[in-house]
Amino acid sequence: MNWVGRDNVALLTDLYELTMLHAYWREGLNDEAVFSLFVRKLPEERNYLLACGLDDALRFLEELRFSRESLDYLVTLPYFSKEFLRWLENLRFRGSVYAVPEGTPLFGDEPLLEVVASLPEAQIAESFLMNQVHFQTVVASKASRVVSAAEGRPVVDFGLRRMHGADAGLKSARAFHIAGVSATSNVLAGQVYGIPLAGTMAHSYIQAHESELEAFRRFSDLYPDTILLVDTYDTLEGVANVIRLSRELGNGFRVRGIRLDSGDLADLARRSRVVLDEAGLGRLTIFASGGLDEHEIARLVKEAPSIDGFGVGTKMGVSQDAPALDMAYKATEYAGRGRLKLATGKKILPGRKQIFRIEERGEAVLDVLARHDESLPGRPLMQKMMEGGKRLPSHVESLEAIRENATREIALLPSRLRALSPATPPYTVEVSEALRRYQDRVASEVTRP
Amino acid sequence: MNWVGRDNVALLTDLYELTMLHAYWREGLNDEAVFSLFVRKLPEERNYLLACGLDDALRFLEELRFSRESLDYLVTLPYFSKEFLRWLENLRFRGSVYAVPEGTPLFGDEPLLEVVASLPEAQIAESFLMNQVHFQTVVASKASRVVSAAEGRPVVDFGLRRMHGADAGLKSARAFHIAGVSATSNVLAGQVYGIPLAGTMAHSYIQAHESELEAFRRFSDLYPDTILLVDTYDTLEGVANVIRLSRELGNGFRVRGIRLDSGDLADLARRSRVVLDEAGLGRLTIFASGGLDEHEIARLVKEAPSIDGFGVGTKMGVSQDAPALDMAYKATEYAGRGRLKLATGKKILPGRKQIFRIEERGEAVLDVLARHDESLPGRPLMQKMMEGGKRLPSHVESLEAIRENATREIALLPSRLRALSPATPPYTVEVSEALRRYQDRVASEVTRP
Repeated sequence: MNWVGRDNVALLTDLYELTMLHAYWREGLNDEAVFSLFVRKLPEERNYLLACGLDDALRFLEELRFSRESLDYLVTLPYFSKEFLRWLENLRFRGSVYAVPEGTPLFGDEPLLEVVASLPEAQIAESFLMNQVHFQTVVASKASRVVSAAEGRPVVDFGLRRMHGADAGLKSARAFHIAGVSATSNVLAGQVYGIPLAGTMAHSYIQAHESELEAFRRFSDLYPDTILLVDTYDTLEGVANVIRLSRELGNGFRVRGIRLDSGDLADLARRSRVVLDEAGLGRLTIFASGGLDEHEIARLVKEAPSIDGFGVGTKMGVSQDAPALDMAYKATEYAGRGRLKLATGKKILPGRKQIFRIEERGEAVLDVLARHDESLPGRPLMQKMMEGGKRLPSHVESLEAIRENATREIALLPSRLRALSPATPPYTVEVSEALRRYQDRVASEVTRP
Repeated sequence: MNWVGRDNVALLTDLYELTMLHAYWREGLNDEAVFSLFVRKLPEERNYLLACGLDDALRFLEELRFSRESLDYLVTLPYFSKEFLRWLENLRFRGSVYAVPEGTPLFGDEPLLEVVASLPEAQIAESFLMNQVHFQTVVASKASRVVSAAEGRPVVDFGLRRMHGADAGLKSARAFHIAGVSATSNVLAGQVYGIPLAGTMAHSYIQAHESELEAFRRFSDLYPDTILLVDTYDTLEGVANVIRLSRELGNGFRVRGIRLDSGDLADLARRSRVVLDEAGLGRLTIFASGGLDEHEIARLVKEAPSIDGFGVGTKMGVSQDAPALDMAYKATEYAGRGRLKLATGKKILPGRKQIFRIEERGEAVLDVLARHDESLPGRPLMQKMMEGGKRLPSHVESLEAIRENATREIALLPSRLRALSPATPPYTVEVSEALRRYQDRVASEVTRP
């Protein structure tokens, strides 16, 4: 099976990055460049983004090198001179990275990160940095809405099977956890990131037994404090079987709850609650799953508040309503001069930047996008994360610390942004006077032939 | 950086697969099971699916084992006995797989593949098989529509940067190629799969030079037969610069074409064509990219037939309008008895199955879903691909052979299915008399307690 890993990830790039590098090398275009990674405009379905993916971006930059095997492939292509490939063999990323911490809510035009490095080093980072930061931000932003809709009830990630591939399967679990998801079904994410695991049984387990009750008996004998899946044949009959089991086991009955995975979840949850309570099983929790997203969860929280937790798979796993963002990685400065792409409708803000977030009475009210060296009111969000190709140790945070930071930052947002419908008005992002002036100056200087 | 690879992929599974395996092992539930992987209902935006991902599914099954490191992690969890983990260490997949070849168009309820193996072996395959076959089928199905819309013009995959992670980045390029995409920008996909590569320059290359014309001069000096990106500042000025360059270089001018990446592509393509033709550069091709999907391409093909090819990124890369399918992997038989999940609205067809595709005058008109041992009119689509855990060598096909098969199979579909709007009527899939009778019999036998 073919895997991407440390030895071949340098080739997971767009061909034009390498042909451009070849040209830069030949022309000696080696001055310092600034590239900015940002989302132009948020999808209608998102009131904010939750920045994610920086950790993998920085690891990639630290480890970037073209292996012998990669170079042996490139030499077979009709694009590259041997001298260039020798230079490429020694290429390392030695630049700086400024970024907002993972778990920071962001808005349109605000940089997630900015790379300051020699032009070739900044350029070669493009494809993979975007591949990682884009999708991790996509899924973290979606998960933040799901968690918000659950109003404090735990949300468990069940999405592995329908995420796009193995890498997304692993890293989305981390992005979800940062966004507030409590646990994951993904065992590898448990190993790699230490995220709490969850999961008990599927319908196939029930089906492999002669009866549902027998399956419940066997499973709870092995895992006494399990959650039993009750909807394989008939949900309320499944609940009745849980009650039968509790009578068989008496004091030995330690089952924690039931899971509903199909049908009218609100109605079944309400009826299950009544039946369980009447049987003296009020302590059993009800866990719902099956095709859920933030809107469905909001409805269930309202109509069946007795649901204690949610398992969310596909729609969060692929961020179904907004599986991609209009993210760009653009040169904003080269050799000390601002750069702007001017073709229709795609203006960018030149140079290196800072974001100031202004809070009043514990609530974020305004962001100001500024030049990097301005001192303005508010809290600066961009921090230096890497220098000379090495991460600054002070910014290597544990997953739990990142998660707590995200929770804190999201709580600072106005409540209309945390709601599921489009915020009216949307959050305000202004451009500072100095940055606006710089933008005008650069626009007037851009050489037209 | 954290990667999924051969040594840890066995852990890329849902926890419940492992807790179920533990229970199966303890209870001695080791009889033969049949699991079927299928899509319940196609999204409205898809008239057919293009099956993809089998190759990686089979490689996974061949290589499946729990490494020392994986077992060392599992032992730390509060779920598994040491005896079970010793058994797990020796677990290998020794079952059979029946499947349709990659590149086969399929419809709702039709199995993409069926696994026949001991219950634990068939169960443990679930999460990863779905993770691979699902997303590869998602993106192949989308790409097939994009290729169809381009009406013979080459489509190039530019999607790496916005696909969901590294694994999707690599394997989607293969899925796209099977679906008829001509080339990819993804260098690693070129190395791993031998897919033709494409790509020249980005806006940042132009911006790094004092003028666009100077950038064109330098790049075409290194790559004489390149395609020049003309929309960095002003698209028609960019075309004028290409013409200036052709005059400077005279007979040495070998540039192949231009790329438009923003603005009103139809209008700019028409105007660029006129200007180029008037300058005697009629042989230069026009390549369009920027936010394209099948609908936009269909519009461009109609309004600006002079566009020679398309670069397609995000919307194909994440299958924006249908990033997930209602795919399931369900037990359909255990120990020789059919199994049906009966909870609301989720009926499945029991046992191992065959699909017969009936063609009339070179056009597919009807599929019949049948029991595996039936002999019915039409062409059987399911083939035995693996036996005793080993791939059958006769079914290991080259990527080009798979691609040609896909082209052939898609051409057999009625034209209304290859159109972009929902097919009326949709393709007909019937269930054979024998399978229907078997379904009824199993339904009546399912033990209710």
